[in-house]
Amino acid sequence: MAPGPGGLEPAMESSIPAHLTVKRTRTKRVGENYTPPYPSYSVRFAEGVSNLVCAFLGVQSKQPLSREAKAASDGMWELCARDDGPISREHAVHTDEQGFDNQVIIAYWDDAEAYGRWFQEHRDALIGAGLEPAGHGRWIEAFAPEARGFETLYSSNTFPEGAARVATGAYSGEIQEHGYWGSMRDRLPIAQTEALEPAGDPFIPDNSGIVRVEPHHNLAVIRSGQDWSLCEDSELASYFGDVEPQLKAGMDFLTTEGASIGCYANRYMTSSDGDGTVLEQSFGLSFWHSLEDMERWAESHPTHVAIFMAAMKFLQANAGAKLRLSHEVAVVSRDQQYYEYNNCHSTTGILGAGRALRVGHA
Amino acid sequence: MAPGPGGLEPAMESSIPAHLTVKRTRTKRVGENYTPPYPSYSVRFAEGVSNLVCAFLGVQSKQPLSREAKAASDGMWELCARDDGPISREHAVHTDEQGFDNQVIIAYWDDAEAYGRWFQEHRDALIGAGLEPAGHGRWIEAFAPEARGFETLYSSNTFPEGAARVATGAYSGEIQEHGYWGSMRDRLPIAQTEALEPAGDPFIPDNSGIVRVEPHHNLAVIRSGQDWSLCEDSELASYFGDVEPQLKAGMDFLTTEGASIGCYANRYMTSSDGDGTVLEQSFGLSFWHSLEDMERWAESHPTHVAIFMAAMKFLQANAGAKLRLSHEVAVVSRDQQYYEYNNCHSTTGILGAGRALRVGHA
Repeated sequence: MAPGPGGLEPAMESSIPAHLTVKRTRTKRVGENYTPPYPSYSVRFAEGVSNLVCAFLGVQSKQPLSREAKAASDGMWELCARDDGPISREHAVHTDEQGFDNQVIIAYWDDAEAYGRWFQEHRDALIGAGLEPAGHGRWIEAFAPEARGFETLYSSNTFPEGAARVATGAYSGEIQEHGYWGSMRDRLPIAQTEALEPAGDPFIPDNSGIVRVEPHHNLAVIRSGQDWSLCEDSELASYFGDVEPQLKAGMDFLTTEGASIGCYANRYMTSSDGDGTVLEQSFGLSFWHSLEDMERWAESHPTHVAIFMAAMKFLQANAGAKLRLSHEVAVVSRDQQYYEYNNCHSTTGILGAGRALRVGHA
Repeated sequence: MAPGPGGLEPAMESSIPAHLTVKRTRTKRVGENYTPPYPSYSVRFAEGVSNLVCAFLGVQSKQPLSREAKAASDGMWELCARDDGPISREHAVHTDEQGFDNQVIIAYWDDAEAYGRWFQEHRDALIGAGLEPAGHGRWIEAFAPEARGFETLYSSNTFPEGAARVATGAYSGEIQEHGYWGSMRDRLPIAQTEALEPAGDPFIPDNSGIVRVEPHHNLAVIRSGQDWSLCEDSELASYFGDVEPQLKAGMDFLTTEGASIGCYANRYMTSSDGDGTVLEQSFGLSFWHSLEDMERWAESHPTHVAIFMAAMKFLQANAGAKLRLSHEVAVVSRDQQYYEYNNCHSTTGILGAGRALRVGHA
């Protein structure tokens, strides 16, 4: 049969860049002729990039965020401008499940060695080591996946969100591996040959003073965002009326009950400027026992299936929707993660992962 | 961590029987430690069974089913009692999208050679060859998958529906491969090593007199059933109030618009006795361009996601639900299929598959 109106299928490429393509020992979920129902893109990092680094640098206090905490965040921001600092830095805010306000800097590097030098130089200042006990908390959550342990998906190729700010190679063409459950795994270069099964459990010491959480192998992290800054009024009404309430319910479930399904921690954050003024952009950030647990939630849990249904209806009702979606996933080895907390409440981020230790999980 | 209250995980086995297990060249979607969220079972056929045969023997007339058509169906039923006839035979009825009533005999064999002898002997009588043009239509849709091209899934191990009536080996223990998208493929023994990509298109001749549809390689068939005969009143109200309307909408979509997504034909049938009196049991029977097209519909199409959501809510709201679910899937080579129609309307079963020939599909 004719292959399409133009005589040829539109050019379609793999999310996996050529230099990270190896002979698969693990099969993709779709056949070579699979064509996704709508276009999506990945970002391309320079070939020389062996690891990315994403660091979340947070401060917290009881709501509203204290001046002292804000000043601490400003200090972290300044440190990001120093030698070997991140290529990209953003702000976001969120109020967590214990009613604490958190202000966060999200910083990206495409050079793990530069990050290493920077972090060694500034770790004490970032986490507040050696300072008097303060009225606020500080926390660092950082991970440095190999390029082959990282994948991205964007609904638009003009949306420099998150990791896309670091991608000198800009966007891919339309990719094949999306629009089906399992496509996340099929986009991960490392999953061409590895099952990515988790090994071990996190070790969470008592929460006093500065504490470090020791993570485990093949923990998975997702940052999943939405930007409504370009939406028309009718699209906005539909997004906030129908989609966002489901998204919020799913995020709340992960934050408060995620432990039951392998989610160690979740934050539903809003992008902001340095003064804490929110932008028209939000994202979820969550940490998982395994990529498989994340897959199961996405495809089967009522809270995410409800999000999926709402998003499908939204896209059907809003032709040419200008809502922009982004997604970054990392699977990291034990030594590619760093979690440290100073004077934070007991469920801050992965510090609360003790909740997630499930019977029968190991 | 402790493996469970009893000290050991419950015994869990593969849906793939030991004698059909080979070294995988294609990976399962879940890891070895995956535990499904609720129990399900497959049926076990005797090791000597190389192929199963499932034949749908139908008659049709404009509603209500004519006496002549009923008599034709009775004749088919009698033929099933002859030498080399099926091990199991059932009745079902449905009114199709053109307002025709169909009465159908569903017959199973576990011996393709016996079926071959029986069919050769009785084909003319079944399809009405040599008879005067009649006021009713007759049709035969039969497929004979290899045992390794067939998989089953049952919510209960006390539910002798469909292929389970043929399984001398009765039920498996609790199987691992269910409760996630892609588990259907993971249960198919042949998918341990084959991608099951379709090849070719069906050839549908003009519809006059007796016509045979020539199918293509790796066509996929699903029979998916529900039995509410054991349900309490409250469960019944929930099933017919919340679940069945979504199921009906999904079945209607496949019947009338399935062509757009690779579904050649669908019937939503109700089990019945020989007089056409309906039982408390229904099933969908559909024919697909490929297993992959079936997968995409199940996991992503709004009509099936709505069914999935409704079913999840139903099971949450009805603890210990007595609704029993069954599922049989076959992937068949070109010569393992037989479709023949005499005096049937133009969209009867796979005779209507011409609608499904999609641009770019080959």
